[in-house]
Amino acid sequence: MDNGMATDNGMAAIIAAARGDRPVDLLLTNLRLVNVFNGRIEDRSVAVAEGVVVGFGDTYSAKKRVDLDGRYLLPGFIDSHLHIESAMTGITEFCRAVLPHGTTTVVADPHEIANVLGVAGIQYMLDSAEDQPLDVRFSLPSCVPATEMETAGARLEAADLAPFFNHPRVMALAEMMNFPGVIQGDPQVLAKIDASHRAGKPVDGHAPGLSGPSLHAYLSTGIRSDHECTDLAEAAEKLAAGMHIMVREGTCARNLDDLFDLIDPHTARRMMWCTDDRHPHDLLDEGHVDAAVRKAIGKGLDPVTAIQMATLNPAEYFRLERVGAVAPGRQANLLVVSDLAALSIDAVYVNGREVAAGGRLKADLPRPAPIAVPLSMQVDPQQIDLTIPAEGERIRVIEVIPDQVVTREQIVRPTIVEGTVAADPARDLLKLAVVERHTGSGNVGLGLATGFGLQRGALAASVAHDSHNLIVIGATDDDMRLALQAVAEMGGGFAAVANGQVAATLPLPIAGLMSDAPMETVRDQLDAIIQVAHELGAPLSDPFMALGFIALPVIPKLKITDRGLVDVDRFEIVPLFCAA
Amino acid sequence: MDNGMATDNGMAAIIAAARGDRPVDLLLTNLRLVNVFNGRIEDRSVAVAEGVVVGFGDTYSAKKRVDLDGRYLLPGFIDSHLHIESAMTGITEFCRAVLPHGTTTVVADPHEIANVLGVAGIQYMLDSAEDQPLDVRFSLPSCVPATEMETAGARLEAADLAPFFNHPRVMALAEMMNFPGVIQGDPQVLAKIDASHRAGKPVDGHAPGLSGPSLHAYLSTGIRSDHECTDLAEAAEKLAAGMHIMVREGTCARNLDDLFDLIDPHTARRMMWCTDDRHPHDLLDEGHVDAAVRKAIGKGLDPVTAIQMATLNPAEYFRLERVGAVAPGRQANLLVVSDLAALSIDAVYVNGREVAAGGRLKADLPRPAPIAVPLSMQVDPQQIDLTIPAEGERIRVIEVIPDQVVTREQIVRPTIVEGTVAADPARDLLKLAVVERHTGSGNVGLGLATGFGLQRGALAASVAHDSHNLIVIGATDDDMRLALQAVAEMGGGFAAVANGQVAATLPLPIAGLMSDAPMETVRDQLDAIIQVAHELGAPLSDPFMALGFIALPVIPKLKITDRGLVDVDRFEIVPLFCAA
Repeated sequence: MDNGMATDNGMAAIIAAARGDRPVDLLLTNLRLVNVFNGRIEDRSVAVAEGVVVGFGDTYSAKKRVDLDGRYLLPGFIDSHLHIESAMTGITEFCRAVLPHGTTTVVADPHEIANVLGVAGIQYMLDSAEDQPLDVRFSLPSCVPATEMETAGARLEAADLAPFFNHPRVMALAEMMNFPGVIQGDPQVLAKIDASHRAGKPVDGHAPGLSGPSLHAYLSTGIRSDHECTDLAEAAEKLAAGMHIMVREGTCARNLDDLFDLIDPHTARRMMWCTDDRHPHDLLDEGHVDAAVRKAIGKGLDPVTAIQMATLNPAEYFRLERVGAVAPGRQANLLVVSDLAALSIDAVYVNGREVAAGGRLKADLPRPAPIAVPLSMQVDPQQIDLTIPAEGERIRVIEVIPDQVVTREQIVRPTIVEGTVAADPARDLLKLAVVERHTGSGNVGLGLATGFGLQRGALAASVAHDSHNLIVIGATDDDMRLALQAVAEMGGGFAAVANGQVAATLPLPIAGLMSDAPMETVRDQLDAIIQVAHELGAPLSDPFMALGFIALPVIPKLKITDRGLVDVDRFEIVPLFCAA
Repeated sequence: MDNGMATDNGMAAIIAAARGDRPVDLLLTNLRLVNVFNGRIEDRSVAVAEGVVVGFGDTYSAKKRVDLDGRYLLPGFIDSHLHIESAMTGITEFCRAVLPHGTTTVVADPHEIANVLGVAGIQYMLDSAEDQPLDVRFSLPSCVPATEMETAGARLEAADLAPFFNHPRVMALAEMMNFPGVIQGDPQVLAKIDASHRAGKPVDGHAPGLSGPSLHAYLSTGIRSDHECTDLAEAAEKLAAGMHIMVREGTCARNLDDLFDLIDPHTARRMMWCTDDRHPHDLLDEGHVDAAVRKAIGKGLDPVTAIQMATLNPAEYFRLERVGAVAPGRQANLLVVSDLAALSIDAVYVNGREVAAGGRLKADLPRPAPIAVPLSMQVDPQQIDLTIPAEGERIRVIEVIPDQVVTREQIVRPTIVEGTVAADPARDLLKLAVVERHTGSGNVGLGLATGFGLQRGALAASVAHDSHNLIVIGATDDDMRLALQAVAEMGGGFAAVANGQVAATLPLPIAGLMSDAPMETVRDQLDAIIQVAHELGAPLSDPFMALGFIALPVIPKLKITDRGLVDVDRFEIVPLFCAA
């Protein structure tokens, strides 16, 4: 597990195999090695023993020989920054979904589960990473909670993170989103950065649009990477100032097209791929890191450079000395590719074992025993009062914009029924509530939304960035309460209520964020529940994704948390009713 | 000192300066920045505060502004592997000699002093590195003693090295010369490698000529660099197998010409410069790392690539995150260069302070207080018996070859005087002795040499690789004893005896290896003593360098240690007299 040598016994066996004094376990012959060190494609044979590449050449005697028929051999791919929670599956099913796509190492930031479960969530993820067929590493979430305007499941200070920095799976401090705190020199923020440096681990940045003196102040603290660049000039400035650029190809944010021209023979070494947030459909249909590599090659990038950005570059950045290349002493994480331009991944080896072939997992690949996950649903929906007393004439409404996470603010005259503000589907005004689920505080934030389009029923979810309280939208209070009840009873998930009944669910029992079912099952459940939402009248392509971002109070303009409406531009909580 | 942030107070001040909320200490304007991240030359201004680069741009208000008249600004250079002992000066004078050449960081392997003083020698070097105007880092000597056929001042096992791995100046385990031990899986050797890995620090290699399965076995242990490549194919094989290649330009070994063609846009990131062993004349006249950079540019290498090999590349390899580039958060170690092709270094800044200009140190640069060095001269030359009883008819003679460290073996009939073997200058047969000086054992190895050419007198030295016992060569036992006496009384150094008197000395009181005088003084003393040696009849260009390698029992063919003659090809001690 560490970055150094295998165990003593293993090392003696590895050296003897490398010398040729004992048969290797596996000899891959007749292949074209993509050598990420010298950029060449080399005719080689590759010998593997004890899960490690031990040498090149045909002279090795081997227990098993595999002729690759002149196909390419690549190092396994590394995702330099992602939230496994976005795949809506736990680590086990995530690994099983991405392995056939050639991902053999990920550096995951458990930001979402940490917002729900705090250090217990981090520990759960660390524990769940053991014995997986994929090398799951972590960066430590740096910003829990994301803001002071919501109730998260935990508050993680430097002292809370400290014990984790020496864990061998922890490679970095994750995306430092609190860039105002960094730039203003907030001691608690600097303490987290300092702890990572003292542990010899890099600090990942998250600095959308930061430039000039603000960027310099941010970088003066030793923050070393960014995955939030959406613009070529922005990325060029950050790279020139010393940041490693993680080019993101997620489900919503896709930056390769915009950043493509930054990649050249001088800059490429400082660039790598990440997916950040990739949802089940994309992971299953398009792939994972391989999708970014494939797209880059398709755009004309030298394939070896595209592959280096998926292998050697992140390995060097995260000091993962034993992955990222096919070379003696490195883990035998190998991809067999028949067509380099199309990046057709025929087979995937991890630690010398074939774990996937033809885009499918090997049937005999075991699932590790599940790790018990702490419960996270401290809420009784029956006790929740969703009524909005009519206290004014003009009310703020969140306007959802299709396929965007930003919202607008509308000011409208509410529909009043018996002295309370009512949803009015005919006017596309729906009631919205965020219900605190972590501490039992009973906090409820109430509001109205437009653009969501439901004509009846309600949708509820426990995935609501970044605090992941319960969020519900609906046409009647009863339907909303029923949807909340369904989510709470599942221990988290999505629920759609139609005709006074729960019409579809997607259970996410792992912290209310992740399923324990295979990713294909999650995709099917998601398709089904979205279909119900569409039948209820929602025009959005993914109403649950839209719902999940309405509670994120760091993206303009008007959002809602368990503490009320947030005007993000003013970065403060605002009343529902406007002054007359 | 650590790789992370400055102290808390310093960090707040740095961030405020980077933001522009307080004046920076220094603003360098009107310059062309050599940006090692993107390979470009950029018109910039560079702001410095608290010794750190805090930003780019002209908007900063500054306590001091310096207009660089369109000259180039480069990051300070890094020597990735050297033995300061080879410069024959202690750290203080070494730093003062190389700073004007643009070296601002070195990774020094205290191999020689460790052979004399063991862990006390390492500690002395670590202590001496404090408060120097140059960032002196270390790699830990991995192979003390070099062989079992000599008496060194210490034996360093993994347990001896262990306490040093967490020292912030220790960046690596140094050149693992014992490649047979690695390849055979010697547990003590593997324990040293493992300790370095566990500390998160790279292991430097030393594997001249190693190839194929032997190389793979060596690399399987995680060894990651080599500075011993003398041949293009050798270096290409090692780089392709994952080694970082340190291209050496020392005094004796100069490999740039042979390895030049390996440098290309894909490979360059894995390559860097080192000097290994560079003597005072070369350091003062040609320079240091700058000499390699200059030579490479002269041979046609892209200047930015040559500079990256002196800056960003070694910084990344050694995880020296705060040097190697001009960027916010990095130490303001800066070179002002007027002609990039000629690499004319007009000024050198360290931590934002100008320490050299026009090739000379700034006059006000203080010398740190000297650190007490343990004594190392456990020997009384008057007690040494240099007689060689005539016990045979044919005697092995070491034949010195001009300008080479390899020797030949001759078998001759010795000149016998009164039952003992005598030096016979007329036949160019001189007596040679290696006198153990570390433990007081009284060990003396005796032999004869030819090719040295002294007609009279004697030369003695305490620099005799790698154990650095006393070595003496001469025409009479009395002159030899007098020369030894002179060296011992100085606490080490070189002595030349002529006409029964000490005619010249070069004192090296620091472990018998290094002077405490300025490097110019050492050069003058060296010139003078070599002049005496030439007057005594020695034809070699540097008789003391030749003397220093006669005791190195790892380079063929016939060598001598305190335990006798060593046949290096047979790797064993052999008798002086041949069987009849």
